[in-house]
Amino acid sequence: MQITTIAGGVGAARMLRALGATWGPSSLTAIVNVADDELVNGLPVSPDIDSILYTLAGANDEQRGWGLGGETWQAMSMLRRYAEANGRSDIGWFNLGDLDLGSHMYRAVRLAEGATLDVVTAEMARAWGLELRIVPVTNDRLSTKLHTEDGRLDFQEYFVREHHEVAVTGVEFDGTDTATAAPGVLGSIAGAEVIVIAPSNPIVSVGPVLAVPGVRDAIEARREVAVAVSPIIGGKALKGPADRLLRELGHESSALGVARMYVDLVSTMVIDTVDADLAPDIEALGMTVVVTDTIMSDLDIARRLALSTVEAITGTASSTPHAASGEPS
Amino acid sequence: MQITTIAGGVGAARMLRALGATWGPSSLTAIVNVADDELVNGLPVSPDIDSILYTLAGANDEQRGWGLGGETWQAMSMLRRYAEANGRSDIGWFNLGDLDLGSHMYRAVRLAEGATLDVVTAEMARAWGLELRIVPVTNDRLSTKLHTEDGRLDFQEYFVREHHEVAVTGVEFDGTDTATAAPGVLGSIAGAEVIVIAPSNPIVSVGPVLAVPGVRDAIEARREVAVAVSPIIGGKALKGPADRLLRELGHESSALGVARMYVDLVSTMVIDTVDADLAPDIEALGMTVVVTDTIMSDLDIARRLALSTVEAITGTASSTPHAASGEPS
Repeated sequence: MQITTIAGGVGAARMLRALGATWGPSSLTAIVNVADDELVNGLPVSPDIDSILYTLAGANDEQRGWGLGGETWQAMSMLRRYAEANGRSDIGWFNLGDLDLGSHMYRAVRLAEGATLDVVTAEMARAWGLELRIVPVTNDRLSTKLHTEDGRLDFQEYFVREHHEVAVTGVEFDGTDTATAAPGVLGSIAGAEVIVIAPSNPIVSVGPVLAVPGVRDAIEARREVAVAVSPIIGGKALKGPADRLLRELGHESSALGVARMYVDLVSTMVIDTVDADLAPDIEALGMTVVVTDTIMSDLDIARRLALSTVEAITGTASSTPHAASGEPS
Repeated sequence: MQITTIAGGVGAARMLRALGATWGPSSLTAIVNVADDELVNGLPVSPDIDSILYTLAGANDEQRGWGLGGETWQAMSMLRRYAEANGRSDIGWFNLGDLDLGSHMYRAVRLAEGATLDVVTAEMARAWGLELRIVPVTNDRLSTKLHTEDGRLDFQEYFVREHHEVAVTGVEFDGTDTATAAPGVLGSIAGAEVIVIAPSNPIVSVGPVLAVPGVRDAIEARREVAVAVSPIIGGKALKGPADRLLRELGHESSALGVARMYVDLVSTMVIDTVDADLAPDIEALGMTVVVTDTIMSDLDIARRLALSTVEAITGTASSTPHAASGEPS
């Protein structure tokens, strides 16, 4: 099985973990959003890549919902001492744990040596013993900018500093005119048996991936084997501002609204049981609908979701699920 | 009292602490070597400035001899995981503690904003509640390079990675053709009542300070009020490679050898009691010699050294030692 997943951060990481547990991690390629990447306190941070690395390695902090387990915050406490003594409340709002800093330092060293982000990411995945391929959608600079009442914000300013509570009037992705897809991105879409758009934010996680020249076209060409899992359940996002952003930008905050955005990309939508009544409207768009539990509150539910998602494309007959132990691998 | 000290790292920090305890920290200006500064794991590290900040703040680790007390090493452990998994033993040899990383991140943020190193250093000193002025000798790039059998090494490669065990055939300071003295450097030399060359490495700590255009001339013009404390005691350096470097570069590894290097700069040498027999030879160079205990093993000895050093210039009559409590301030 070759499954290529279009991935944002935490939601995608849980989906990938479930797909890996079901079909084996070596079946998986994750094409990851990098438009939230930023130089934070001098270090290059790739939030979505790191969420996937940490979650797939089983090293993430499930309670906090981001970052590493066993994390400490010594460096931040010192940084804030300097910031506070100098009236700089604008420094230190982006929390980087001490362990996490080790990841960003490794990335900093390798990028400074001239290594590309895809190579560095592969090296980091190897260090965690991961078998799935984690590929940044581009090695080039790609940067989400949000137009708000407070002006044009970087993604992290919007998401972390403002806790995504400021109204957004527009979104753009700086760099799409020059960015090219990283090696392996278009090929893994062309060669996939199944393409999964993970339950990530359609606007600021999946959006930038689709905005890299060639990616949207490549997925549209494979629409018949492409399936999306709705990140909107009962009109709301499980986490983050997807619901609010959809409304603010003129979309409907529902599985139907997401289906409309993805109608040219995927042939199948996976929606939650609470949204079963939306199925006819989605089918009317020309899509197949799978209704199942999509809240990955434990690995069993997540695996059932992974199985339903992939089998919606392959059919149950052709599928050969991975003989996993039930643990994420 | 206005005392300007030419400073390297740990030895200078102890001298400054003793001078501050004796004459009050607001009497002090430290002009600090920056030729060991380097981008380490993506972050700008200023080892000598940080040693002085941490020691004067009483936050240093006295046992380890460098860095901060209460330090942890989580970030390094993570960085080394990546380095080892990818066969990169050349990454992660420079130990940066988690707390210490907070300092480098603050510096990174401010330098990226366009602040100069002297301003950032003043901000960091303020955060530690320090009253002495800590001034980098230059805001420009200055970089010690050591010619060795293994090729041309950066200072940290020589000092930290190679544990200063490789033979040195020459030293140069990259950047002296374009570096200018930072604001306050030349003025604090011109205006000082006493200029102290701290017991720092004459070649790689004091040497780069003197190599910044204008600094050597400014000190030579004040030779009568300038005094140096020998970092060589009984032919050996207390710490670091000063003794070995002196010999390798054709100097005598003794207080007399140091006096010869400083003869145009200072009118007075302070040497250890174990080197009392060298006093006549140093006096024969045209210098005054003060013989006292120079190993700052406790604050009382350090304060007596500070008092002797300053009073060698001012005379006991004109001096008004600070009514300190005996604690470093």
